[in-house]
Amino acid sequence: MSYHPQPKVSLVGAGPGDPDLITVKGWKALQNADVVLYDALVSPELLEEAPAKAVKIYVGKRAGKHSYKQEEINRLMLECAMKYGHVVRLKGGDPFVFGRGHEEMTYLAGYGVPVYVIPGISSSISLPALQGVPVTRRHLNESFWVLTGTTRAGTLSSDVSLAVKSSATVIILMGIRRLREIAELYRSEGRADIPAMVIQNGSLPEERSAVGTIGELPALAEAQQIGTPGIIVIGETVRLHRDFSKTLFQLNSLHQELVAQ
Amino acid sequence: MSYHPQPKVSLVGAGPGDPDLITVKGWKALQNADVVLYDALVSPELLEEAPAKAVKIYVGKRAGKHSYKQEEINRLMLECAMKYGHVVRLKGGDPFVFGRGHEEMTYLAGYGVPVYVIPGISSSISLPALQGVPVTRRHLNESFWVLTGTTRAGTLSSDVSLAVKSSATVIILMGIRRLREIAELYRSEGRADIPAMVIQNGSLPEERSAVGTIGELPALAEAQQIGTPGIIVIGETVRLHRDFSKTLFQLNSLHQELVAQ
Ligand SMILES: C[S@@+](CC[C@H](N)C(=O)[O-])C[C@H]1O[C@@H](n2cnc3c(N)ncnc32)[C@H](O)[C@@H]1O
Ligand SMILES: C[S@@+](CC[C@H](N)C(=O)[O-])C[C@H]1O[C@@H](n2cnc3c(N)ncnc32)[C@H](O)[C@@H]1O
Repeated sequence: MSYHPQPKVSLVGAGPGDPDLITVKGWKALQNADVVLYDALVSPELLEEAPAKAVKIYVGKRAGKHSYKQEEINRLMLECAMKYGHVVRLKGGDPFVFGRGHEEMTYLAGYGVPVYVIPGISSSISLPALQGVPVTRRHLNESFWVLTGTTRAGTLSSDVSLAVKSSATVIILMGIRRLREIAELYRSEGRADIPAMVIQNGSLPEERSAVGTIGELPALAEAQQIGTPGIIVIGETVRLHRDFSKTLFQLNSLHQELVAQ
Repeated sequence: MSYHPQPKVSLVGAGPGDPDLITVKGWKALQNADVVLYDALVSPELLEEAPAKAVKIYVGKRAGKHSYKQEEINRLMLECAMKYGHVVRLKGGDPFVFGRGHEEMTYLAGYGVPVYVIPGISSSISLPALQGVPVTRRHLNESFWVLTGTTRAGTLSSDVSLAVKSSATVIILMGIRRLREIAELYRSEGRADIPAMVIQNGSLPEERSAVGTIGELPALAEAQQIGTPGIIVIGETVRLHRDFSKTLFQLNSLHQELVAQ
């Protein structure tokens, strides 16, 4: 086997799902790809942006079927770069937000393969925004906190228990299956009334969501059969969602209040 | 004055500075703009993507000069949409991250003008990533927390005092002038040794940064005259920065340790 003279890997964030939410830089990288290694949440339409002759390999998880281990993905990236040249590693959202992108970068760097990081639109900030909910809002809050619901140990992250006490907008990824547990934490802090929402398949045609208080949310999500992949957003800014206060009057009076402050 | 039959506003995130970090969707909106209203941290190159005949108005803050008040920007957006049609409101980073994007959206909605939100790459996640520092990393942490250093009251946000106690990667926007105060908070928690960095003008040719422990950082930043606009990143993941451990050997042994866990 002969080696390619210029192996390199672009670690590209594909955005949350809508193919037009990739960056121009990521799109340019795709157009110059010899190989594309892509994950489960990446839009098939994006693959068409790569040259027809580029090798395209799905390395995401598939329910019930064999899925690549991280070590296998690392090895495959390296081999493809050595053999074909430019590998685009296309990852859902931003590659460095719970994405193991850094592990992939370190692995390749260890073999002297140049790695270029191209950030992506993270589901954490963009999915609430696309529904009109900002992660920060003057007068309402001064921060947002993005957490994983599922730790390696399989338990709820201890950061979640801290987040429950803060005034940050709390955004939990990979936490849909623990929604009830999370709601209980808020209840035990006497904060079951905080506005909250779940968003499944955000930015895609099949997007579904539920909006309510964190106390009500598990029942709402269940009634609407909202599952994975999804994010949970908890905080005062969710009150600004068009479905939270049903009438324009209510929204307007909140707005007047804010302006008056 | 005659009114345009289809006024609309796209609230577009321009990304942190590098013009190629806008999304494809944002870029398409720019190409269809009749008017572009843009902020201080938006790349001049992006304006060239709008049609030559589009009206381009700078509404950002300029040191020492008159800068538009939020109410004036709101009014201008509305007037431009009514007069010319499609207004692209181009904002630095993501429009809903400390960007007052939601206020602009609410204002326009109040006049029945359709608003489209197009998320952008936020400086908070992307600028550390572009230097190889992930906001999350398995084995190191389970969350990241994005805060403003400057509240409306002019004081340090009380969320910062909480964040100092958490294991989240802490990212502070608009906090460069309060770096010393922030470092003191970490010191008083006995955490002056946590890795930290500042990044000024990230993703731009004039990018500058300093890396050290949060205890050392104010002196380092001062010595290198790092100023605004900048972000502060504090947390164990900053240890992964190439400049934090100077030798490959050190980095490698950390990597081995992580792999062994
Ligand atoms: C392994 S994490 C990767 C996150 C990704 N790097 C990002 O920045 O969005 C996968 C989780 O992201 C969230 N997620 C990503 N895309 C989503 C989408 N389109 N709709 C809902 N949740 C999504 C879900 O919580 C999912 O379990
Ligand atoms: C009003 S906030 C808007 C943030 C923006 N919406 C975002 O998502 O990045 C402005 C602050 O963002 C940070 N910032 C934005 N772009 C930056 C850049 N290129 N380099 C360093 N800091 C930046 C700085 O902290 C600056 O004071």
